[in-house]
Amino acid sequence: MNVAIIGATGYGGIELLRLLHQHPFVKVYAIYSSSQEGTNIAALYPHIHTIISHDLQTLDIDHIAKEVDIIFTSTPSGVAGKIVPQLLEKGVKVIDLSGDFRIDDPDIYKEYYNMNQRATQLQKKAIYGLPEWSSFDSSLSFIANPGCFPTVALLGLAPIVQELTIDPASIIIDAKTGVSGAGRSASEATHYPTVNDSVVAYKVNEHQHTPEIEQQLKKWNHTISAITFTPHLIPMTRGIMATMYVTLEEKVTSDEVHHLFTETYRNHPFVRIRPLHSFPRTKEVQGSNFCDIGISYDERTSRLTIVSVIDNLVKGASGQAIQNMNLLCGFDEGAGLQHVPLYP
Amino acid sequence: MNVAIIGATGYGGIELLRLLHQHPFVKVYAIYSSSQEGTNIAALYPHIHTIISHDLQTLDIDHIAKEVDIIFTSTPSGVAGKIVPQLLEKGVKVIDLSGDFRIDDPDIYKEYYNMNQRATQLQKKAIYGLPEWSSFDSSLSFIANPGCFPTVALLGLAPIVQELTIDPASIIIDAKTGVSGAGRSASEATHYPTVNDSVVAYKVNEHQHTPEIEQQLKKWNHTISAITFTPHLIPMTRGIMATMYVTLEEKVTSDEVHHLFTETYRNHPFVRIRPLHSFPRTKEVQGSNFCDIGISYDERTSRLTIVSVIDNLVKGASGQAIQNMNLLCGFDEGAGLQHVPLYP
Amino acid sequence: MNVAIIGATGYGGIELLRLLHQHPFVKVYAIYSSSQEGTNIAALYPHIHTIISHDLQTLDIDHIAKEVDIIFTSTPSGVAGKIVPQLLEKGVKVIDLSGDFRIDDPDIYKEYYNMNQRATQLQKKAIYGLPEWSSFDSSLSFIANPGCFPTVALLGLAPIVQELTIDPASIIIDAKTGVSGAGRSASEATHYPTVNDSVVAYKVNEHQHTPEIEQQLKKWNHTISAITFTPHLIPMTRGIMATMYVTLEEKVTSDEVHHLFTETYRNHPFVRIRPLHSFPRTKEVQGSNFCDIGISYDERTSRLTIVSVIDNLVKGASGQAIQNMNLLCGFDEGAGLQHVPLYP
Amino acid sequence: MNVAIIGATGYGGIELLRLLHQHPFVKVYAIYSSSQEGTNIAALYPHIHTIISHDLQTLDIDHIAKEVDIIFTSTPSGVAGKIVPQLLEKGVKVIDLSGDFRIDDPDIYKEYYNMNQRATQLQKKAIYGLPEWSSFDSSLSFIANPGCFPTVALLGLAPIVQELTIDPASIIIDAKTGVSGAGRSASEATHYPTVNDSVVAYKVNEHQHTPEIEQQLKKWNHTISAITFTPHLIPMTRGIMATMYVTLEEKVTSDEVHHLFTETYRNHPFVRIRPLHSFPRTKEVQGSNFCDIGISYDERTSRLTIVSVIDNLVKGASGQAIQNMNLLCGFDEGAGLQHVPLYP
Repeated sequence: MNVAIIGATGYGGIELLRLLHQHPFVKVYAIYSSSQEGTNIAALYPHIHTIISHDLQTLDIDHIAKEVDIIFTSTPSGVAGKIVPQLLEKGVKVIDLSGDFRIDDPDIYKEYYNMNQRATQLQKKAIYGLPEWSSFDSSLSFIANPGCFPTVALLGLAPIVQELTIDPASIIIDAKTGVSGAGRSASEATHYPTVNDSVVAYKVNEHQHTPEIEQQLKKWNHTISAITFTPHLIPMTRGIMATMYVTLEEKVTSDEVHHLFTETYRNHPFVRIRPLHSFPRTKEVQGSNFCDIGISYDERTSRLTIVSVIDNLVKGASGQAIQNMNLLCGFDEGAGLQHVPLYP
Repeated sequence: MNVAIIGATGYGGIELLRLLHQHPFVKVYAIYSSSQEGTNIAALYPHIHTIISHDLQTLDIDHIAKEVDIIFTSTPSGVAGKIVPQLLEKGVKVIDLSGDFRIDDPDIYKEYYNMNQRATQLQKKAIYGLPEWSSFDSSLSFIANPGCFPTVALLGLAPIVQELTIDPASIIIDAKTGVSGAGRSASEATHYPTVNDSVVAYKVNEHQHTPEIEQQLKKWNHTISAITFTPHLIPMTRGIMATMYVTLEEKVTSDEVHHLFTETYRNHPFVRIRPLHSFPRTKEVQGSNFCDIGISYDERTSRLTIVSVIDNLVKGASGQAIQNMNLLCGFDEGAGLQHVPLYP
Repeated sequence: MNVAIIGATGYGGIELLRLLHQHPFVKVYAIYSSSQEGTNIAALYPHIHTIISHDLQTLDIDHIAKEVDIIFTSTPSGVAGKIVPQLLEKGVKVIDLSGDFRIDDPDIYKEYYNMNQRATQLQKKAIYGLPEWSSFDSSLSFIANPGCFPTVALLGLAPIVQELTIDPASIIIDAKTGVSGAGRSASEATHYPTVNDSVVAYKVNEHQHTPEIEQQLKKWNHTISAITFTPHLIPMTRGIMATMYVTLEEKVTSDEVHHLFTETYRNHPFVRIRPLHSFPRTKEVQGSNFCDIGISYDERTSRLTIVSVIDNLVKGASGQAIQNMNLLCGFDEGAGLQHVPLYP
Repeated sequence: MNVAIIGATGYGGIELLRLLHQHPFVKVYAIYSSSQEGTNIAALYPHIHTIISHDLQTLDIDHIAKEVDIIFTSTPSGVAGKIVPQLLEKGVKVIDLSGDFRIDDPDIYKEYYNMNQRATQLQKKAIYGLPEWSSFDSSLSFIANPGCFPTVALLGLAPIVQELTIDPASIIIDAKTGVSGAGRSASEATHYPTVNDSVVAYKVNEHQHTPEIEQQLKKWNHTISAITFTPHLIPMTRGIMATMYVTLEEKVTSDEVHHLFTETYRNHPFVRIRPLHSFPRTKEVQGSNFCDIGISYDERTSRLTIVSVIDNLVKGASGQAIQNMNLLCGFDEGAGLQHVPLYP
């Protein structure tokens, strides 16, 4: 099978190339960029020199339609909204890694993304591709790949909000992210002396992933309305940790909650539940598609603390996109994603 | 005035030396260590070579009583409990940087510190020295210097729990600390490859600073019982950030809450309130005695987010100890603590 | 084929497990540890939980001899010297990752390792396994796997000292290493606050890899006697860079020197030569078996600067050990080593 | 005395503000910026909020001449060349932190800075202000403050090249710098994910500080011609280490060389010589004006290894500028520079 990447020069794109290179069933046919046509991707990223060699090309929808089975769009906000309708019309399957097709309500999209949502009628056709919680069938052709924060948060909250009686107003997500999540473009906020040896909270109560998380939580538990989400930038390249707090309104034991998690994810190899009182570090999933989760229930406060970690570029973006592709194509869910985390 | 340090070889001790060296009114008379007598402190810490020179001495209470006015104890848990009674009896003023005299209830001390609290009758004489919220008079002779997490958390929570109607069960403190807080002793948990480029939560719902925070909050607001406190270790040497969440049960505006903070700390130069929607980074207080605070109130959830940062070795330990000494001695509160933060 | 690891709990051992897990032709039969028998390796390293599961076992040479074809010894100095003779006698092939069998001269071993070299007669049978420069034949059974610094340095110096007329007294190796090279044991030197945001030179003119480098250089160019080698510890987990200086005593151009490098390594896929004036970063080989090299020749000084980088745990230890195993067994040289570097 | 800063918004400028704020004899009268007039500097750098408050102003030479005694120019290459002549003409003393007046030969300036040197006649009047090696008299009015790499290198090489018989072609400077040396402007090269957990060599044999170092070395020892200088960027904010190699052509012992260093700098409090076999870390001078030096002489190779460290923003820029000001004005050399290094 042939796949292609639109927007291959960013961190999400280059990570797709890394993972697809080792995928047993697909071949990268072409990579596209709107700004660096003709440049070989290995000139931008010397680490793939002698391994991967593709010249960046100008987007040609007709050509893609003829040669490519699945396309990944890894583009800035607003771009996929323009391109995807043309691709779908030509019969190409699409996995969109941007936020353009994740939000059902155009007003909310506009509020958080500061632009009008395009192709809103297509939005209804997009499957929100959190593989552990989505249903795939062979008729599908279009997946909206979740954001990094929603992925790490929803995998940790899913069992609780679906199976336990919670205070629906109690959900707090305190996230710590590495800097690669900000992308490849340099800015004062990602300048090394700004970030190193320091921590800062940003977009407090304003981050665009807030409505994405809320939308899915509401689908799972209609009593939930607004949540609190605080992202923090820490001195780290890859990885996200979400520390989450939920107040329970039923009597449970720690063991029961732990059992709920292990049962829920028993058949989902990419979600690993730690023993009670053990918590994951982000580096323990580095370079892999795993989401590791630890929990602690405090009977004093009836509050559950859930700690969930992913590699933001793998399970939080490109790895999950490939996991979605695998399910879309009927491949083994883990095909091409069997990396042992790189530790230390 | 002569001061001395018991336990000078740890990070807290060496930071006391740094700050006291530049203090206009006191002189370090002697430094004590139970394990490295005879060694010059500059041999352990070459950065003070040619600036500060003291041989570590064996503790001699009678000698101290004769020559020293104030002593700082910066010792492991359980040690100050043995030494302080003798020092106080001889009339030496004591500022204890350990946790030995911070907890009123011996049962709680035992539960969290895993040892019996000593000198519990003295505990009642210890003033909990959070200078912005403590009363000092000249008759005082004994201060329990707050822990690093309690300092950063209590300064951020104080105005809210004292002045607003809150949900007393809603308080969550999600803290991110640098590694110097773990002290100078090497361990697998502080080994560079373990910590670098990674984040981990630890002592979830079990940290010994939890009861210290709760005890003070209850004194300020008797409706408060248990809180949730989660410390995280991030790749950073100095600094702590506490991101705190409180649900309000009265109608307020963001401006009103911000005004409450600026008014509360108007005459407290070491607490700086950021403009609304602006949040501090830990490095912006590095090497200084400042506590910087930013807030965001979300009307959707009636939840207030408070972000508070300190340098754990300064305002979280040695700097605050000197601030306490200044107040104890009638010096200017900021004497010897006028460092501009080292940024970047 | 069955392989086993003696000393599996260190960073070298766990990296062997990561790489062997993905190897197409071999199976890890058992792992041994002298101190943690019975413990599952995944309990020590949660990142391999659900992927790799082996209980650490007590060493049983007879059992190994029956079941295992190749054994990797990844043990502290002096241990392999004891174990390897017994293994070889039983007919097991051995790849030793320690320094015990790399030094031909027992006096030099003693001078740099501060202990007597054992099994010195076996030392003569050990092939120094720098695969790009060693000859393998099927009769071989014992490989001394090079040290991390010698690997990165020798690959960069080999073409020069063998093909050009140099000042043999001019060779300087200024190396910058990540902290994982110091192993998994915590110490003050590897304590996070010691290492972070700082750089230090260590073992200046005293490092035990100095004679290993000199020994090989002399084999290639008998005019070489002593070199200068300075290792530096920088705030980094994986990776080594060697910046090397050699004065040439013949007239060359930059292009000629560059051509020499590209020709020398044309058929060696794990050594990648950068274009002139381009230099590699350590992260560009992270997690992979590559050695990337950049050069600059300064006609003003007749001095060549060679910058060579590897991942110290892969090409500098476990990856190279597997590359050696592949050659020893007649597998494809790159079997199980086809990882795209993890960047960023 | 009144001082002012032209170019106050960069890291060099803000560090001048930090140090001058604590200087006992001078007052910052005004700060100038060509791009952000009217902005308060505390809005750009929240860490000085409530401590230092100056609005950035448009440069007004006549006004400066009337009110200001000494001006610091901390501007990009080429700017001081335009401004300084006007300032000197009006009788203001100038300390220039840029490279505009450090190079005697305009052709060399052009070669390395890629622009024409301005005001070349003034260049002759500039004193190269390496205080430990420069002569100051009260008639002086214009100082070219050395670059960060030249400072750390020249302090380490000075005793050797002046007092010992060396191979003049043997000098190699292998430098490791923190990222703050690249200034406050973000770029891909200083983007956090590019720099973190990695090391890279840059401007190999091309760095603009090369001729500055060579020029001074030649003044001290006319046999010296070209040197080799390789800067490396490491994951660190502040600090530079220069590891330097010189071959000696006379018979010496390690003790004699060490004695030479201690004697040379006996009366220079900002240069600290480590005991033999002890080497400084960059963090041991963090935030201070110290230059710490360790040496090792290898009799096997007749080569001396010198390791010299500074804080690039203090002794490598702003601190040295103030040290120069102190000498220019007849103040105590260390006035305002008595900071204990911030460690850890």
